[in-house]
Amino acid sequence: MSAFEKLVKHAKKIDNFQHLGAICGWDMAAMMPSGGSQARAEAMAELNVHIHHLNTKPELTDLFAEAEAENLSEQQKWELRELKRSWQNANVLPADLVEAASLANAKCEHAWRSQRPDNDWQGFEKNFREVVKLSREEAQIRAEATGQTPYDAMLGLYEPGTSSASLDTLFDDVKTWLPKLVDDVLEKQKSESLVIPQGNFSTTSQKALGLDVMKLLQFNFDNGRLDQSVHPFCGGVPTDVRITTRYDESDFAQSLMGIVHETGHARYEQGLPKSLAGTPAGTARSMGIHESQSLFFEMQVGRSAPFIARLADLAGKHFAEHDAAIFDKDNFQKLYTRVKKDYIRVDADELTYPAHVILRYEIERDLINGVIEHTDIPELWDQKMQAYLGLTTKGNYKNGCMQDIHWTDGAFGYFPSYTLGAMYAAQYMAVMKQTVDVESVIASGDLSPIFQWLEQNIWSKGSLLSTDDLITQATGETLNAAFFKEHLTNRYLG
Amino acid sequence: MSAFEKLVKHAKKIDNFQHLGAICGWDMAAMMPSGGSQARAEAMAELNVHIHHLNTKPELTDLFAEAEAENLSEQQKWELRELKRSWQNANVLPADLVEAASLANAKCEHAWRSQRPDNDWQGFEKNFREVVKLSREEAQIRAEATGQTPYDAMLGLYEPGTSSASLDTLFDDVKTWLPKLVDDVLEKQKSESLVIPQGNFSTTSQKALGLDVMKLLQFNFDNGRLDQSVHPFCGGVPTDVRITTRYDESDFAQSLMGIVHETGHARYEQGLPKSLAGTPAGTARSMGIHESQSLFFEMQVGRSAPFIARLADLAGKHFAEHDAAIFDKDNFQKLYTRVKKDYIRVDADELTYPAHVILRYEIERDLINGVIEHTDIPELWDQKMQAYLGLTTKGNYKNGCMQDIHWTDGAFGYFPSYTLGAMYAAQYMAVMKQTVDVESVIASGDLSPIFQWLEQNIWSKGSLLSTDDLITQATGETLNAAFFKEHLTNRYLG
Repeated sequence: MSAFEKLVKHAKKIDNFQHLGAICGWDMAAMMPSGGSQARAEAMAELNVHIHHLNTKPELTDLFAEAEAENLSEQQKWELRELKRSWQNANVLPADLVEAASLANAKCEHAWRSQRPDNDWQGFEKNFREVVKLSREEAQIRAEATGQTPYDAMLGLYEPGTSSASLDTLFDDVKTWLPKLVDDVLEKQKSESLVIPQGNFSTTSQKALGLDVMKLLQFNFDNGRLDQSVHPFCGGVPTDVRITTRYDESDFAQSLMGIVHETGHARYEQGLPKSLAGTPAGTARSMGIHESQSLFFEMQVGRSAPFIARLADLAGKHFAEHDAAIFDKDNFQKLYTRVKKDYIRVDADELTYPAHVILRYEIERDLINGVIEHTDIPELWDQKMQAYLGLTTKGNYKNGCMQDIHWTDGAFGYFPSYTLGAMYAAQYMAVMKQTVDVESVIASGDLSPIFQWLEQNIWSKGSLLSTDDLITQATGETLNAAFFKEHLTNRYLG
Repeated sequence: MSAFEKLVKHAKKIDNFQHLGAICGWDMAAMMPSGGSQARAEAMAELNVHIHHLNTKPELTDLFAEAEAENLSEQQKWELRELKRSWQNANVLPADLVEAASLANAKCEHAWRSQRPDNDWQGFEKNFREVVKLSREEAQIRAEATGQTPYDAMLGLYEPGTSSASLDTLFDDVKTWLPKLVDDVLEKQKSESLVIPQGNFSTTSQKALGLDVMKLLQFNFDNGRLDQSVHPFCGGVPTDVRITTRYDESDFAQSLMGIVHETGHARYEQGLPKSLAGTPAGTARSMGIHESQSLFFEMQVGRSAPFIARLADLAGKHFAEHDAAIFDKDNFQKLYTRVKKDYIRVDADELTYPAHVILRYEIERDLINGVIEHTDIPELWDQKMQAYLGLTTKGNYKNGCMQDIHWTDGAFGYFPSYTLGAMYAAQYMAVMKQTVDVESVIASGDLSPIFQWLEQNIWSKGSLLSTDDLITQATGETLNAAFFKEHLTNRYLG
């Protein structure tokens, strides 16, 4: 067995343990009763220690050196590159820092769950200080190992190949046109009237409707399931993708579009190259590309006129006892394109969402690079919310800088993925329309040509290409935010 | 840390991995879509290899020797005894035999799934031959390690402390009175009429009814769930017990009593001593004692007159649109005590069940001890079915010796547990009635005194006592089958 083959075999062993963690993680969120949590946490911690042990086996150093000297095919070289990237990410940190960060993050997140509703920045700040300190240490070590700035080294965990220099360019451009676009759209929508869903939409009917929509989106039910959890997510493994949603019986709209979103994530996982299963090259390219699939489903397909018409029709059938005016397709379109300047990112509409992301990106970049301190965050948050969305968060921590879980867990560098995903999705659609009659395909109810395009250009590539090469091969150029601007302008002012 | 403490810590580590296996195993049966099976099987195999590796760490030999020389409390000595028993069971077999048996069993079981419906003994025999050969090798090695006969060494995996000599005595006695009792009961029931449930009992209503019954039986829903699977079982971990059932929409009766049975298993798990969680001394005493709990719930409580009356009442409420005559308590009683000589063990009634078990016990005992060959089984099966239940299975393999999964998996020595459990359960009830007014307690709807007796005498003991000591402390004597005979005679001829 060659050194390369040994590395692949070892990666598959790690993947087997990650499989158990993925299923038990899904179970924790979707199935586990409260009394099971402590024993489960201990079992998951034991598993993570074991995976870390496998990732850091000393003999891997020599195996990588040997494999790099072996006569490998072009594809094997890419596979090796991803194996090494994954190994280096896991190995560069000293064990005591990993442990200290893990404890500090858990402590901060746990306390945050009650501090946020209490608007308790003072209490939060005490734990968060330690999270920031250790995250900066992590960033510094990763920066030294990769020759990047500290923040870019963290960004690379989620978006390998992306830099804050390129994000600055992208986002600075967005900031030149987004605030005015939002204002113009709000002005336009001011006079619109719409019928808001109200009343009792049973979980059973919502689930049946969700399953119908998943079928329309060709989710493969032999390789996945839909369940419920407090925070919707896409988990499991590529051959068994578990998506979840949360049902609000007073309104079906958010859950329904949430299912469309998670189905996008799920189809990416289901479409990853089977020949590379269990190895880093067979996994999703990046968080931004993952989000580009969920947002392609949710924003590009899901909010297109012919899809909205189908969705309205299906929902009307499942909720036949409710006011038919809700399910009028124009009403549905308005329902799903309402714009509002508001505080909470996870509830934000398509148009204002980038403002929430850019604000977080600018703060976390400067925080990790040591340009600002964590105590500067509340004031910066307020300034930027005023600048981008005209809202103040002075003294309002719970709906301001304490609203997200990401930073409590030290996940600095993750936020840009959301808006990168939205931009990639707009770019795919613009290019796809050159060869696929997207509107007619959606109207026909057989969306196969759309999924074939995605499968061929994105899903089947796994991590065999860099993000830039992936996007260039798929669309003829690297990320171009003009597509996103055009998409938003057409949809909201067209 | 003392050697004893190191051994406990190591056992808890193993238990953490077993936890992941238990949840993923439950998921395979209750949740996983078909396409997930291959990757899951690989992940589970990887986990089992790892657990085997942990169980067979060379340094454990010295740790056990050290721990045995340490100054331990009486309870710690018992804990150590169970740690050692578990370790020895896992270590005595050479790795190549474990692997060969695992492959042979998997091959035999897989083929059996289609060979059984095809009544294909010839095809089955070819794979089964290898399973028997390797099981005999296993039994021989275990026999040499424990100084027992080969079959008794296998029996000890499920019923430590029990021997075939004592089973021979027990079962020979049963054979002297059971056939006549069955005939007498059949004669008595011949003239009885009853209303058989028919028609559409929705899964939703059956589940709601099942949950009500679980509440009555004080299942702790903070530490467990009810789900569906093709083969009902009790899985998960003590803090998160997963029971399953299978719903037949044409008849609720079997599923309902199945839930009562699994709830018995579940409450034993939920009631195990928390201070010993994750160590062998904190687990169930034996398969027979486990079955004594499920059968205590199903047969002693579940088929008692006051419980049947409650059950009939609850079922009548959930199925209000059906014929009320079904839910008459006398009808319910007849429904759940009907006796029939039939071929299939898993469908057998309380009275004929021991005949199915004794037949299997006698065959597997002689097979593993080398007294008979596997090719003798069909004829022996037919002879014994004729002798015990007056039925012939000549040429009828699928409803004869090919009906069970146990032997395909090499699980020789397991079958006696079922009837031992039924006997223990009858003994508990007879003794419990000396201090608890069981009928009134059940009629009151608050069954707490019954569960307190079980918790105090059985559940909280884990594996801290030998089976004989456990039964003697609980009931004043070791297993006495006279209680079982008396119970059956009273119920079916009283």
